[in-house]
Amino acid sequence: MAETARHSEPRYGNRPTMKDVAARAGVGLKTVSRVVNGESGVTSDTERRVQEAIEALGFRRNDSARVLRKGRTASIGLVLEDLADPFYGPLNRAVEEVARAHGALLINGSSAEDPEREQELVLALCARRVDGLIVIPAGDDHRYLEPEIAAGVATVFVDRPAGKIDADVVRSDSFGGARDGVAHLIANGHRRIGFIGDQPRIHTAIERLRGYHAAMEDASLRVDESWVSLGTTAPDRVATAVTTLLDAPDPVTAIFSGNNRVTVTAVRTLAGRKRPTALVGFDDIELADLLGITVVSQDAAALGRTAAESLFRRLEGAGGAPDQKVLPTRLIARGSGEIPPHEG
Amino acid sequence: MAETARHSEPRYGNRPTMKDVAARAGVGLKTVSRVVNGESGVTSDTERRVQEAIEALGFRRNDSARVLRKGRTASIGLVLEDLADPFYGPLNRAVEEVARAHGALLINGSSAEDPEREQELVLALCARRVDGLIVIPAGDDHRYLEPEIAAGVATVFVDRPAGKIDADVVRSDSFGGARDGVAHLIANGHRRIGFIGDQPRIHTAIERLRGYHAAMEDASLRVDESWVSLGTTAPDRVATAVTTLLDAPDPVTAIFSGNNRVTVTAVRTLAGRKRPTALVGFDDIELADLLGITVVSQDAAALGRTAAESLFRRLEGAGGAPDQKVLPTRLIARGSGEIPPHEG
Repeated sequence: MAETARHSEPRYGNRPTMKDVAARAGVGLKTVSRVVNGESGVTSDTERRVQEAIEALGFRRNDSARVLRKGRTASIGLVLEDLADPFYGPLNRAVEEVARAHGALLINGSSAEDPEREQELVLALCARRVDGLIVIPAGDDHRYLEPEIAAGVATVFVDRPAGKIDADVVRSDSFGGARDGVAHLIANGHRRIGFIGDQPRIHTAIERLRGYHAAMEDASLRVDESWVSLGTTAPDRVATAVTTLLDAPDPVTAIFSGNNRVTVTAVRTLAGRKRPTALVGFDDIELADLLGITVVSQDAAALGRTAAESLFRRLEGAGGAPDQKVLPTRLIARGSGEIPPHEG
Repeated sequence: MAETARHSEPRYGNRPTMKDVAARAGVGLKTVSRVVNGESGVTSDTERRVQEAIEALGFRRNDSARVLRKGRTASIGLVLEDLADPFYGPLNRAVEEVARAHGALLINGSSAEDPEREQELVLALCARRVDGLIVIPAGDDHRYLEPEIAAGVATVFVDRPAGKIDADVVRSDSFGGARDGVAHLIANGHRRIGFIGDQPRIHTAIERLRGYHAAMEDASLRVDESWVSLGTTAPDRVATAVTTLLDAPDPVTAIFSGNNRVTVTAVRTLAGRKRPTALVGFDDIELADLLGITVVSQDAAALGRTAAESLFRRLEGAGGAPDQKVLPTRLIARGSGEIPPHEG
């Protein structure tokens, strides 16, 4: 037995193969395959020997290979919004880890924030017979998905809700997170606070703006409409918004930035000005600790993991009404949000 | 005519549809479809009217939809190494833009730096009949791809070369970039310079280490073997390497970090020490400008774009021997690489 085991070196790293199991159990490959796949035609004594070899070697069935052999699909599609936004990296990886744990292949694509591209991509993935879909929606009308969902394609929306259809959704508490962040600025003495956010057709942008208004109202503070700036996250647009807020006759003393793209440009613009201005940003950013940027952090990996787990529960037959999961955010004070107001 | 145009508002953004063309030309949808697809059964007068409407509206055929209708595959696969590494974001997006310009769908997956996963994923994508593959290799033996390549799947390797097969490769000049970065530290007065890199089985890690040795040799400087630390980019490992280099009896006065993951931890570790230490990192990092981090920058988007363009040229029938493209890097001085040496 020891001899046999020594001759069955796994080919890659330390992962044993079905061949190793066969060698250790002293049976043929076909017999191992029958045991692994729960097929008939194996005596209970042989099955026991194979199971012992599986346990001794720590053999794990290679699900991807099995799927290929059986010609089943076992794949899920993930439609992202922007492949280059670092926020989606950990989300993407978390979905992939869950997919792999279920022996499924993850297929990705990006809508580039274009509702038409989203639809094209989703339908192309359905045509390639994915079993399920995780969608970060760019559009606000997902009725085009109804025939696919009726045909059995499980779908979970993440980061933003589905439009005009009932579906499972996993998202962060954008409203509550923004309210916490703005309340933090108020607690540090600010009364005139600007809000720079993403385009108003994006659900999270509007939710965070609602959070800003709620925090101001909670503190009985007036909001001047010139303090709110929504639009693209292009650096030029955001830099102009920051400068306009701070160069006004009665300038704001603090800024809340609505996502990581806005925050990066806001930090850069503020760094070029004489006087420090308080800033709290939605989303954490790499190295924000060294730059002392106070943020409202959402857990991108938890969003991806939760969405993927919901999807696989549906694929495994879980029924029930569409489920809305809202994950909490976390305020991380690092300095920029604790700068006191200066007089205009 | 103006009336008709006014009634044919495109549904998404400003992109006109085939329906808009039909309305403007005063013909049926089927006629527009015939003209667009070059089918017969349309008089030359009608064809001219449709072409004029197409030009006036700036109509562009929706290639993804056409591919779906014809049931053709027209997809390419991209196998990444780590979905959460921000370096791959712009590369991924650039590949997607080129794919979309060719009317092809991009399917992604990640090997998570595991050669076995890479092979599983590549073969799963081939089983799904991708027309071409772009691979950031995790393994160093790609002979498993030979049957697929022989069967007509075009393949381009990016970031790192293929192992044991001849194939098109697009990569950055890791050797030259590292040599430039280390020469910059030498020009700033350093003689004892440490190198912290990724695992030695990764091609770019070894190329950059070669560049380090070349720069030291160019300046007739001795390298103590304790100055070189290769291993995973896990924060603990890198932090220990930095501390070991700086707390040695005869410490280094500068560090060259082999990639963005190493640089992030090196910057964080150096920030926690009393005395500033010179640092040059391979790869640029978001907000590195504000932190004053001197880097050797590679153009991730250009890598992706060049690889995708090479792939589509092969798909369109370009012959010839496998091609090796090496893109230049760029030294960006921002402060950390210009810190002078301090005496141990």
